[in-house]
This record gives sequence, C-alpha cells and structure tokens, in this order.
Amino acid sequence: MPLTKIAQQNLRTPGPTPIPDDIMEEMSLPMINHRGPEFKELIEATTDGLKQVFMTTNDLYILTASGTGALESSVVNTLSPGDRVIACTAGSFGDRYVQIAQTYGADVLRMDFEWGDAIDPEAIRAELRKDPSIKAVLVTHNETSTGVTHDLEAISRIVKSEFDKLLLVDAVSSLGCLPLPVDGWNCDVVATGSQKGFMIPPGLAFISISARGWEAYQDAKMPRFYFDLMAAERSLQRGQTPWTPNVALLYGLRLGLDRIISEGLESVYGRHASIGEYCRAGVKNLGLQLLATDESRASNTVTAIKMPDEIDGGKFMAMMREDEGVVLAGGQGKLTGHCFRIGHLGWVTKEDITEVLEALERVLPKVGFSG
Amino acid sequence: MPLTKIAQQNLRTPGPTPIPDDIMEEMSLPMINHRGPEFKELIEATTDGLKQVFMTTNDLYILTASGTGALESSVVNTLSPGDRVIACTAGSFGDRYVQIAQTYGADVLRMDFEWGDAIDPEAIRAELRKDPSIKAVLVTHNETSTGVTHDLEAISRIVKSEFDKLLLVDAVSSLGCLPLPVDGWNCDVVATGSQKGFMIPPGLAFISISARGWEAYQDAKMPRFYFDLMAAERSLQRGQTPWTPNVALLYGLRLGLDRIISEGLESVYGRHASIGEYCRAGVKNLGLQLLATDESRASNTVTAIKMPDEIDGGKFMAMMREDEGVVLAGGQGKLTGHCFRIGHLGWVTKEDITEVLEALERVLPKVGFSG
Repeated sequence: MPLTKIAQQNLRTPGPTPIPDDIMEEMSLPMINHRGPEFKELIEATTDGLKQVFMTTNDLYILTASGTGALESSVVNTLSPGDRVIACTAGSFGDRYVQIAQTYGADVLRMDFEWGDAIDPEAIRAELRKDPSIKAVLVTHNETSTGVTHDLEAISRIVKSEFDKLLLVDAVSSLGCLPLPVDGWNCDVVATGSQKGFMIPPGLAFISISARGWEAYQDAKMPRFYFDLMAAERSLQRGQTPWTPNVALLYGLRLGLDRIISEGLESVYGRHASIGEYCRAGVKNLGLQLLATDESRASNTVTAIKMPDEIDGGKFMAMMREDEGVVLAGGQGKLTGHCFRIGHLGWVTKEDITEVLEALERVLPKVGFSG
Repeated sequence: MPLTKIAQQNLRTPGPTPIPDDIMEEMSLPMINHRGPEFKELIEATTDGLKQVFMTTNDLYILTASGTGALESSVVNTLSPGDRVIACTAGSFGDRYVQIAQTYGADVLRMDFEWGDAIDPEAIRAELRKDPSIKAVLVTHNETSTGVTHDLEAISRIVKSEFDKLLLVDAVSSLGCLPLPVDGWNCDVVATGSQKGFMIPPGLAFISISARGWEAYQDAKMPRFYFDLMAAERSLQRGQTPWTPNVALLYGLRLGLDRIISEGLESVYGRHASIGEYCRAGVKNLGLQLLATDESRASNTVTAIKMPDEIDGGKFMAMMREDEGVVLAGGQGKLTGHCFRIGHLGWVTKEDITEVLEALERVLPKVGFSG
C-alpha cells in the first residue's frame, strides 16, 4: 500500500501536470548504466526529439534540474559579471530571471511592466537605442504567474534583427504547448522544464543554445560547474551526461516526445489554443475577471483569474480541492491571495476544464460570490 | 510497448542501482500540487527520514539535482572567492570537488594521494598546522572511482576537534550504506545523491548543514541561486521547495527511507559490509587484484579491480554485458581502461554478487586471463 495517500484529483496547476498511464509505466523500466549503450540511445533519441519540439538545429541539452536551473544555466553560460543586460518582468517569473542575473553580477537594466500586462516591445527598442552597451535581453515567453504570453516574435525582431543582441528566453510554461520556433525567432538560449508540456513529472530541464550563444560562452566569466553547457556538450558527444542523469524521467520523456511529434506540433498548439479559449470564455461567463489586461495576449497554458474581493481565497481554494477534487494554483509573489490560476497544458482535455468550470459554479456562491 | 528496449540485467554500476518493484509502483502515484497540503506532508516526511539516515539534527534539504549539484551547493553556500581551503583527492570524485571549489574562486590547497590509497589524516594535520588561514577542508568519504573509503572519523577529529575548521563532505556513494554519523563526526555540510543507497533513481540530491555551516553562510560570497540553501530553508518552513521538485522521486524516496529505517541502520551497514567482503574475497579468489592498496579501507559499496594487462578491457566488459547480462562500471578519469568496478549498494543481495563472480569465472578465460 502506498505510503502517500492521494485522493483522485483534477490537478490544474500549471505544472506539475497529470501524467498519462503509459508514460508512468514507461518510467518504471529497469535502471541502466548511464555510461552504457542503452543510455546512449536514450539520450540521443530524447535530445533529437526535443530539437524537433524546439524547432531548432541548435545544440540542446537535458539537465537534471527544475526549469529554474536551466534559467540559471542560460545566464551563467553567456554572461560575465558587469555585463549590461535588459531583463523584462511583468510577474514572478520575470522577477526570478532578474534575480538570477543580478545574483551572478550582471548589471541589470530592469524593465518593469504591470502584472497582467504584456511586455511592450517598443519599450525594449527605446532602451536598446539609448544604451548601445547592452549585451543581452532576458525575457519570459509565458508569464505563468499572470497568465500572459508575451510577444516574443516582436521582441525577437527588435532584439535580434534590429540590434543583434543576445536573446535569452524563459520558455518554461510555453515550450511544447505554444508556438515557439526557436530558429524561426532566432532565440539564442531557450530554457524549459519537463513538468509542463511534456507530460512527465518535474525533474528535468531542457536548454538550447545557438552558435551566437556559444560565441558568448567563450567570453562569459560567470562561474559555472553543474550547469556548464560545455561539460554537457563534451559528454553528449559520447552519448552521456556529465553528471548522473534522471534515467526514469528520460524513459518517460522519450514516450512523451513520441506522442507530441506523432500528433504534430500544429495540432498540439491548436489543442492548447482551443482549450485556453474555452477556459477563458467559461470563467468570464461565471462573472469572473481575467488578470490579463489584454485578452489577445492571455495565455493558452494557464488562465489567471482575479480573486473576487468579497470572497475568502483560502476557503475557496480549500473547498475546490476538498469538496470538488479540483486543485487550482494560487497567486504568486505580490499576487498571493489576489488571484487563482487554472493550468491547461500538457495532458489536458476540454472535459477536464468543464469539470473545473462546473465546480466553480457550485463553489463560488457558497463563498459569497454572486457573479 | 515501451520505446526503450532493456534486456534483463544484473546492474552492478555504483549508481544508478536497481529499484525494488514496490518503490517503482509508489513512484507512479498521480502528480500533486507542489504548493499543496499533500506535498507538505511528503517533503516533511522525507526530510525527517533523511535526517534519521544522516544521523543528524542539522538542517537538511532535498535538491532536484544529481549528487554533483549538492557538492556545488556545499561549496557556494559556505565559501567566498579567495578563501583558502584544503581539498583532498585520491580519485575522480576528489578531483571533482577540487574543480568545483576552484571554479567558484576558492584558493585551493590541493592534496593529492595515489589513486587506490586512502587519504592520510596526518598529512591534513600537517597542512593545517602550517597554514592557519585555511578555512575549510573538503573531503570525499567514499571514492567511487577507486573503491576506497577514507577514514572520515579520523579526518574529522583533526579538522574539527583539533583545528575547528569547516568540514565539507562528499558522501555520494556512502550515505545510507556505510556508517556516517553526521553529528557524531561533526560534519558541517554533507552531500549525497538519491541513486545510491536509497533504492530510487538518480535525480535528487540531499544536503545537511550544521549551525557552524550556517554561520559560514552569512559571510559566504560565492554566487548562488538554484543551489541557495537559504531559499530552501525559507520554502521548507512552508512545507515547500523553492523550485518545482521531482515529486515522483519523492514518493519513491519516502518508501525507500521507510524500508531503511525499518530494517535499522546497523543492519543496513552490516549487510553492505558482508556483501562487500564477499565480493572482494570472490574476485581475489579468481586471481584478480583490488585497486585499493589497503584492503582494510576497501569500500563496502563498490569494488574496484585492476584490469589485467593481458586482456582487452572493452571486449571483456561487452562480453559480461551481452553474454552474461552483468553490467559492470568501467574506470574513470586516468583509470579509464585500467580498472573495472562492481557496485554493491542499495538494493543488492549476496546472490547478485554470486552471479557476477560466476560470470567473471566464465568470461575471463575467454578473453585470455588465466588467473
């Protein structure tokens, strides 16, 4: 009997996401030598599959870490202390990217946008014009804390085509769910995590790096060891990883990638877009308000909803979980208590969201929300 | 049908180690919200269980990383660039600890011992006497690459009782298998990984830190973000982790810990000691030579054996794997091609080792070794 009791839940956090049964089963394959031939096949197959989903021919590495580890890796492999960089933030994860760059000594020009707003590409252009010393722009593609997808394509046109700066991208809650053609949008370093679109548990992070990123690596003086991408490159040439990898998750990843690639990326994106739209329409219909100020930039992987003033957020979330078996995510950072979020990424169906909407319809009146 | 084909194997690498079926099953529990009440229970139970196995009342954290990530964490949380430290090495993993400290700017007094020898505690005493500016001593408890267990108890008496320096310990292939009373031996920071004694896959790392370690943290100026133990502490106070944790491995860890604690640490140590001795006796009986120069310091988690000069090591390892289903580990670093290793830690029985010995007896003559 399992030691951990878990009631049947509709897990609607924007990661971890539910895991399909066959992927669970795949992860139960026996352990193997991570310096042996089976592992070589496994790491090569998963790396190749990830490149397809990243739509890139850039180098790509699988790290044993959370997505945040890959964000740290994107910074320390390309920058030196004192480098002038722009870091845009409109939420908790934007803030995190700022903090990582500052921690390692970058001279960060922090560009703040209202939480709920999208990053304004024109504002980035203005700063890049003012300060030619800027070396890199750090940007979150999909801000999980506010449910807003920033216009990475427009940002890339400015950062890359107009100013030719390094572009580092946090794609943790977007890659594999929302269109992000890494080569098409000329992104130098793109970081994401396993627990989002890939239908596997958290514990792996993925990072791609362009030739321009490798050029930056040559001069980059921030210290790095565990997250050193050159160590990853040298090992991958032998079909290995520099540090002992999470073999079980790689088994699952291989099947998750196979499923995404078989379905086709366009279909995966279309499915996320249609479920995202269905979710937003449903919550608005209940009289709730989206946190995203411009609905055309609302995220198709997570919907953030303003917590109605008149209700007790803690009680509401507990009732959703305990009475309805629907696990929502709360607000993060300064949004704690002021919003709740519905994740709809990875292994998710319209029916899962219908269940959430029906549960909301039952619970909200009980906590005093009339809509 | 699983995408990855894996033949039935006797996996005898010193990590990853085989996983018991019930632990595999436990890891297949549904995902949960890592900010919710079930997770709080899970992280608290596993942290408490780990403290029992570490035999410590120190703070302890679970990181989503390989063991190497915890080694990096031990360094960056306690030291500043320019700090004078001793790092002892008698193998690949000792070298790795040296490299991590150097990468982050420590002024490393590197103490090299022959690979196969144990670290000489008296030599450490001599250096500590000569240079009072030394702040910390970094030491590997069990050198996986040579199959030697260093005398951490004696080293600790010198480093802690005589000189009162910080003691940082790589316990990756020892903790949970070999006696390592963290409080009893007064170790300030102890780092280990999940894929060794804990009977779960790689992907988590564990690290304990003493009050003295926290004092060092206050002054430590090496940059740290992902591996910042204060971030881990703040989150653990809320029953969380700072970055999305590997939930599936935590399920397995909970059961693995339950099993270790139910069996009793003394019994676990006794089992490893008796299997280690059985393995060494068996290989010597076949005419093979141990790499450890002093058998009384040979490791009870991994046996390293000199590759006989007259045989083709690559062919030998491949025949063991393909004809006999026995997966051995090769040599690392400068021992590549010069030794092979038999792991016997975690979920291992005497019968597993008997199978290895019988396979060796069949294969060795075929590759030209007469004993």
